[in-house]
Amino acid sequence: MTVLDQTGKRRPVTSATALPDLPAVRDEVDAILTDFLAKRAQAAPGPEMTPLFTTLSSLLHGGKRLRAHLCVTGWYAGEGRGDRDRILRVAASLELFHAFALIHDDVMDSSDLRRGRPTAHRALATAYVADGHPPRRATAHGLAAGLLLGDLVLTLSDDLIRTGPGAEAMWRIQPLLETMRSQLVYGQYLDLVATGRPCDDLEAALRIVRYKTASYTVEWPLRIGAALAGAGPDVHSACSEFAIPLGEAFQLRDDLLGVFGDPAKTGKPVGDDIREGKATVLMALALQSASAADRRLLRTAVGNPDLSDEDFGRVRDVIEHSGAHRQVETMIMARRHAALTVLDRAPFPFPAAEALREIAGIATVRQS
Amino acid sequence: MTVLDQTGKRRPVTSATALPDLPAVRDEVDAILTDFLAKRAQAAPGPEMTPLFTTLSSLLHGGKRLRAHLCVTGWYAGEGRGDRDRILRVAASLELFHAFALIHDDVMDSSDLRRGRPTAHRALATAYVADGHPPRRATAHGLAAGLLLGDLVLTLSDDLIRTGPGAEAMWRIQPLLETMRSQLVYGQYLDLVATGRPCDDLEAALRIVRYKTASYTVEWPLRIGAALAGAGPDVHSACSEFAIPLGEAFQLRDDLLGVFGDPAKTGKPVGDDIREGKATVLMALALQSASAADRRLLRTAVGNPDLSDEDFGRVRDVIEHSGAHRQVETMIMARRHAALTVLDRAPFPFPAAEALREIAGIATVRQS
Repeated sequence: MTVLDQTGKRRPVTSATALPDLPAVRDEVDAILTDFLAKRAQAAPGPEMTPLFTTLSSLLHGGKRLRAHLCVTGWYAGEGRGDRDRILRVAASLELFHAFALIHDDVMDSSDLRRGRPTAHRALATAYVADGHPPRRATAHGLAAGLLLGDLVLTLSDDLIRTGPGAEAMWRIQPLLETMRSQLVYGQYLDLVATGRPCDDLEAALRIVRYKTASYTVEWPLRIGAALAGAGPDVHSACSEFAIPLGEAFQLRDDLLGVFGDPAKTGKPVGDDIREGKATVLMALALQSASAADRRLLRTAVGNPDLSDEDFGRVRDVIEHSGAHRQVETMIMARRHAALTVLDRAPFPFPAAEALREIAGIATVRQS
Repeated sequence: MTVLDQTGKRRPVTSATALPDLPAVRDEVDAILTDFLAKRAQAAPGPEMTPLFTTLSSLLHGGKRLRAHLCVTGWYAGEGRGDRDRILRVAASLELFHAFALIHDDVMDSSDLRRGRPTAHRALATAYVADGHPPRRATAHGLAAGLLLGDLVLTLSDDLIRTGPGAEAMWRIQPLLETMRSQLVYGQYLDLVATGRPCDDLEAALRIVRYKTASYTVEWPLRIGAALAGAGPDVHSACSEFAIPLGEAFQLRDDLLGVFGDPAKTGKPVGDDIREGKATVLMALALQSASAADRRLLRTAVGNPDLSDEDFGRVRDVIEHSGAHRQVETMIMARRHAALTVLDRAPFPFPAAEALREIAGIATVRQS
């Protein structure tokens, strides 16, 4: 059996084209994570460590496993052959890296909810009090323990990745891992510095999106998978061309969900970005188009941690009426379209391109 | 020329015995760090990142480079041959790992001073206000930025290490790095959970010391150096036997300096451990031996962040009169002696053993 590839040539359908769907990858990755974390919890120095592992397991529970799926798909895109289990271990480690990012992000923002449950630092504060410690120390303890859990999860991610592909492949993907890690930190820092200064600079807001989310959510998982397959520069280029607009669209959808989403579906409160004063693309566009009076309202409300639900409702109306909501929807669709167009000419096996098409849909049209 | 080794056999003095002293290692390591960080700062996405790199450079300025020296000495202890520069890069990366640990430790404790200068998160808060941001956000910003800087430095440490010994040697030292990293986090967490509950359990306090400091300060740097030299299990065993008591002695000296040290020399305020309520060995011994009235005084004072200097003076007197200060001095000397005794029979080249003897002195008799 053969399929028609993007250059019009016929290629044979090989084992590499037997591409698993997202639920299948999720199950395999979850099995690896469960087994790995159980072993590490057992090797930890004592029962005092239990809250760290319990909290991590709980946090991991609700994830979409998008990064893992992208990594596996990247391997197929690069026509990877051989033992898929080694690739799945790298994919699983990217989910731990993501968990690290979420834990530290929530500590920095003092957020209460994530994936519909208490954030890691809140859960650790609760465990601390349940263990008989004074409630007055709980908040500070939770934040410090959350910081440590993040550190632990980053090192666990590193440890898990090394159980996968062997010394030679590790060496090959190392520069990609390094870029992924430092870009995330740089993005978070850009975000942090801009927080509290709502600004109509669209380019600045997009730069934060690129560093903070786009690259570690789409580009590096995909390219790490491709690198594991030993893909050449043309595959890597196509991965980046597909990933960069899609990663931006992913974060733009997140920004919309943060203001207009349904907390029952997103698992986090609505309005946090506004109360924290995040310099999002949505806010930049609203500030550009709102009337002078509405701009004043936005500037007073954004970054006010005590903003009432009623006042938040007003902010939401201003954003809606400014046209920014619609503009961001248009930006998402344009980016999604750009990503899909790349797939039409990318040197990927047909099933990998199809899987990426599906992921592009999930990442941009999602409600959570 | 030959030297008499520990088993009484004569060995030739080889290039491996030309062992540099601490100032020489410090200069070489500092040159590597300066060059590496300048390149990374230049590759960072923009001028917004400058405070991160400036703060890191400032923090690195005052270090003793003990871990780097131990790593290099471990290489000589394992009779390492060949390009010493590759080893120095690993040694330098351990100093970045240490910087990461200090930065996050100071964030967790909200400490103000480190190595005689503002802690990283305080420096970042100052830079934030200097850049025109509102002072009311400075403290929260500093803590969040300090968390991010710690994350960045951990990844930089990882990146630097990989510029050193090559894929094969990296693979060999990886399990040691993993253990070092997770033990540090576990130790910090044990410390955190015990904080605020001063306790007379000496064994619990020693366990914190072992995880939190001893292993990442002495044992793993030394053994990573030995592993880079391709040392066998007998060298690794001797490294651990030397390192474990010495690492404990190092932290016990730290505990004493934290209560009885001279801030002008230690570079940090005296009394922080008491105000934070750290469950140190010193405190465990004081609680064991103090009178009932003095124990009550200790239990009230320890963990009180607003403890006056006068009340801290009282705590210090109680510790002194309880005999705990003397007991800890005795423990330090006993551990130092145990470490030195290991050297008498360790399978290390004579100059490496001599260097470790010198390090044992510096680590235990220091005033800063």
